[in-house]
Amino acid sequence: MEILVVGSVALDSVETPYGKVEEAVGGSATFFSSSASYFAPVNLVGVVGEDYPMHEIDFLKQRGVDFTGLQVVPGKTFRWAGIYDYNLNDRKTLYTHLNVFSDFKPVIPEKYKHSSYVFLGNIAPELQYSVLEQVPAPRMVILDTMNFWISGSLESLKKVLKRVDIFLLNDSEARELSGHGNLIKAAKSIFQMGPKTIIIKKGEHGAALLTPDTTFFVPAYPIEDVYDPTGAGDTFAGGFVGYLARTDDVSADNLRRAVVYGSAMASFSVEDFSIRALKNLTPERIRERVQSFRDITFFRD
Amino acid sequence: MEILVVGSVALDSVETPYGKVEEAVGGSATFFSSSASYFAPVNLVGVVGEDYPMHEIDFLKQRGVDFTGLQVVPGKTFRWAGIYDYNLNDRKTLYTHLNVFSDFKPVIPEKYKHSSYVFLGNIAPELQYSVLEQVPAPRMVILDTMNFWISGSLESLKKVLKRVDIFLLNDSEARELSGHGNLIKAAKSIFQMGPKTIIIKKGEHGAALLTPDTTFFVPAYPIEDVYDPTGAGDTFAGGFVGYLARTDDVSADNLRRAVVYGSAMASFSVEDFSIRALKNLTPERIRERVQSFRDITFFRD
Repeated sequence: MEILVVGSVALDSVETPYGKVEEAVGGSATFFSSSASYFAPVNLVGVVGEDYPMHEIDFLKQRGVDFTGLQVVPGKTFRWAGIYDYNLNDRKTLYTHLNVFSDFKPVIPEKYKHSSYVFLGNIAPELQYSVLEQVPAPRMVILDTMNFWISGSLESLKKVLKRVDIFLLNDSEARELSGHGNLIKAAKSIFQMGPKTIIIKKGEHGAALLTPDTTFFVPAYPIEDVYDPTGAGDTFAGGFVGYLARTDDVSADNLRRAVVYGSAMASFSVEDFSIRALKNLTPERIRERVQSFRDITFFRD
Repeated sequence: MEILVVGSVALDSVETPYGKVEEAVGGSATFFSSSASYFAPVNLVGVVGEDYPMHEIDFLKQRGVDFTGLQVVPGKTFRWAGIYDYNLNDRKTLYTHLNVFSDFKPVIPEKYKHSSYVFLGNIAPELQYSVLEQVPAPRMVILDTMNFWISGSLESLKKVLKRVDIFLLNDSEARELSGHGNLIKAAKSIFQMGPKTIIIKKGEHGAALLTPDTTFFVPAYPIEDVYDPTGAGDTFAGGFVGYLARTDDVSADNLRRAVVYGSAMASFSVEDFSIRALKNLTPERIRERVQSFRDITFFRD
């Protein structure tokens, strides 16, 4: 099954205790595609300026990413810069230059409209909604967001959430959106907003998959040298949606497996800067990492 | 197999968003015994003042807790008071009155000396060491500590750690003791200090069992209404050590199961103030909760 992703395509300057990169390819749609393309064809919608180094993501074409929907417009590409603290749990944004992204209007090419799995990356909820207006009958709509939209565009976010099947957000966002400190209570409150499946990303503490009747936890893969956590959430989403699209099975069992695939992909991503660690994976390495998640969580009764 | 526990027996005044208790029974040895006694006989060593309401812990005798080693001395019992913030992750100590605990010297009764599993609760490392000098050949020594001893009595702590099999500490303590922000690196550094098995308690994020070759994660049981987290760590330790003592099996598989039993016991404990939730459990309820941990972590390959 094909995936449609709409999100940012950016140039990131990142500094961590392990080093730094200047204007490396990044953005939610880039990380997502780099991850999801190991599993299923990806149709990408986004915008870049004429300065964007297209050759940097050329390799994704060979992995089945279609760039017909990537608008190239006069001006500069979205740029973001951030610096992480010593334990990589907190980061400070040095600057956010939206540039051409500030006028982004997602236009879904005709040939993308049959995409079964739609991933709405972290962009303005109004734009996320406009995507759904252009896609007639997606099998699953998966949405990511951030605190910026929760505090600044809450009504628009709530409007789009009514049409969302699976909602990905992190723990602090879940607390802010629901007003509950307890994540189980937070999830119950968010179920009322529409999505009946919620994935709460907890960074180094893993992820939780919640439905009104079930809870599933997966830890983060233990990595000694986390070089750069940037994009881990979108890489997780890419593995998660990618696995669902490949199997086209949204049963409870398969959703759990998809969360593990997402976690595995995220664990690769943080081992290097930008999308570097996502360039040369193999199905075998991905499979091995998924198996490792079983080893670190399994206990015999 | 019998368990020896040495730790504090205290009166806690606790306030959380769910209510408050005044001078309720608490302390590491109390929580530990309330939990471990569901699994194996417990020999308790501690100290209280003449004001201690012994009838409050009389029920533990029926569960096989021996109080021969509990010194009752003139003066007032150790008192602690704390208040938790709205999401129960942070707490402020209002006062710590050591009272009779400040002169505590653990004396191990003759009949306790054959105890196979020794749990050294969070007391001064010098006192923990003095216990080991009195117990000739324990099968396993399990030790808990806190940041107060890491910063204030580091050399004494390192001395006792050389004789410890299993070291329980929380994530911030592991970071402080090792100087590493990354918990895998922190564990590697702590292995060098002696213990070849480390359990890192992560509160609402669960626990990790680490050996030089393996890693195992278990999440915290999802609880909507956490009334009082006080004593959760000692209750975890009680379930963990209790299960090991009952089965007398320290294989890798059984250590994992013991961590799940510890997590299950801790999950009951936080559902009420003081040791209330640990008074009337049944083997069936404990077993069911352990099974629930399987349900929330299991995925099919």
